[in-house]
Amino acid sequence: MLELYHWEPNAASARVMIALKEKGLEFRSRYVEVLAFEQFAPGFLALNPAGQTPVLVHDGEAFTEASFICEYLDEAFPERPLLPQAPLDRWAARAWQKYVDDHLAAAASDLAWAALGRPALKARNWASLEQAVASIQPKERRDQWQAAIRGLDDEELERARERIRLAVARIEADLEGRDWLAPGGYSLADVAVYPYANYLPSVTPELLGERTRAWLGRMSNRPAVKAAETMARTADAYGIAAPGPEHIRWG
Amino acid sequence: MLELYHWEPNAASARVMIALKEKGLEFRSRYVEVLAFEQFAPGFLALNPAGQTPVLVHDGEAFTEASFICEYLDEAFPERPLLPQAPLDRWAARAWQKYVDDHLAAAASDLAWAALGRPALKARNWASLEQAVASIQPKERRDQWQAAIRGLDDEELERARERIRLAVARIEADLEGRDWLAPGGYSLADVAVYPYANYLPSVTPELLGERTRAWLGRMSNRPAVKAAETMARTADAYGIAAPGPEHIRWG
Repeated sequence: MLELYHWEPNAASARVMIALKEKGLEFRSRYVEVLAFEQFAPGFLALNPAGQTPVLVHDGEAFTEASFICEYLDEAFPERPLLPQAPLDRWAARAWQKYVDDHLAAAASDLAWAALGRPALKARNWASLEQAVASIQPKERRDQWQAAIRGLDDEELERARERIRLAVARIEADLEGRDWLAPGGYSLADVAVYPYANYLPSVTPELLGERTRAWLGRMSNRPAVKAAETMARTADAYGIAAPGPEHIRWG
Repeated sequence: MLELYHWEPNAASARVMIALKEKGLEFRSRYVEVLAFEQFAPGFLALNPAGQTPVLVHDGEAFTEASFICEYLDEAFPERPLLPQAPLDRWAARAWQKYVDDHLAAAASDLAWAALGRPALKARNWASLEQAVASIQPKERRDQWQAAIRGLDDEELERARERIRLAVARIEADLEGRDWLAPGGYSLADVAVYPYANYLPSVTPELLGERTRAWLGRMSNRPAVKAAETMARTADAYGIAAPGPEHIRWG
């Protein structure tokens, strides 16, 4: 009934995996090996022409975009809701999801890519890499991968760090006097932020705040988060043999 | 009770103005003159540190991001709903909103800026412009404005046209056999796309499809769209004295 095409339980894939586990929904896992570019295989592009994980398939319909897959799950399966009740609080949870989509995801991914992803890819299959990347469609995604393989320069990395500073300030502000990011309790806001904030103890520990650290601890203790984490195929999401510090186990 | 800080009824401001009118909600209009950079005045930055219109204020709370202001209005005032009932159809409407946020808005705005906005700004206050722009905070927005003032090069314009081609193909596909973009009837998808698609008859008429033209006609005949349009201060949103073709009257 429910199938999820996903990579390791990190980034956008993790958001939907955690949401499914939080709601107690059974689903068939379809693993897409992003570092082998399986997301650009014709079969996957037929599901999502943008060539991006995750994709949820429900009753033959394919759903893309993690924020809106999560909202769909919350509406199609209303038990164990993951959005607050009050319209104001629902806006706050959605605004967090959008902030993740527009700012936090790219910044955290840039830093994690530089520290972990690019070295892992280079170790894995660098020889045939340029050829594999050259065939990626659409062109916009090919350009992104070619830039990723070249690597970020210092100015780009500093820009990513500056965005992380702003994101952490926002997390710290929203955790003042409460345990979860949106007013009204645990929500899709926490689900959206966690897979990216979870990189930070490894890649920019100096930028973390105390509330953010405590919240990361609460998140990683949730049974749903642990259940998503057990779906990792490799020691961490980038296939590096030796696991890093605890928080990066699948980051 | 409801206050809307907005520019002319175009782009993101138009989305919320149309949604308010569709729902029959009274609101106090607070005009922000974007080409005079009033969105970077301290009073406005206190409402939205990103320095972007529109902002909705309801019972003392400030709401940003057009997609989520519209969803908030639809939940806080459930009469005359602007999202379909079925979860699948709701996902489709939200996916359209995200597509506008991530792709169509920038592409259409780039083309409209090159054709209309930049000349209008240049005619208005070019002399003191660089000084005004130099004081914009945050830096990221200042960089954007400085790039806008320099103008787009041919490659950037062609990239915008390519994105418009893809957007029109998506509009044409979703209008096959129905009048509105999302299954389930008129929705926030139409509200989101209209202010950007409405530029196209003026700036890239060669890229329009037949269904898109017919849909633009249906949209512009809606009383709510007409009501939003009457809130324009100038002949069009860029303050050009002579109005262009009908579709660009406030585009």
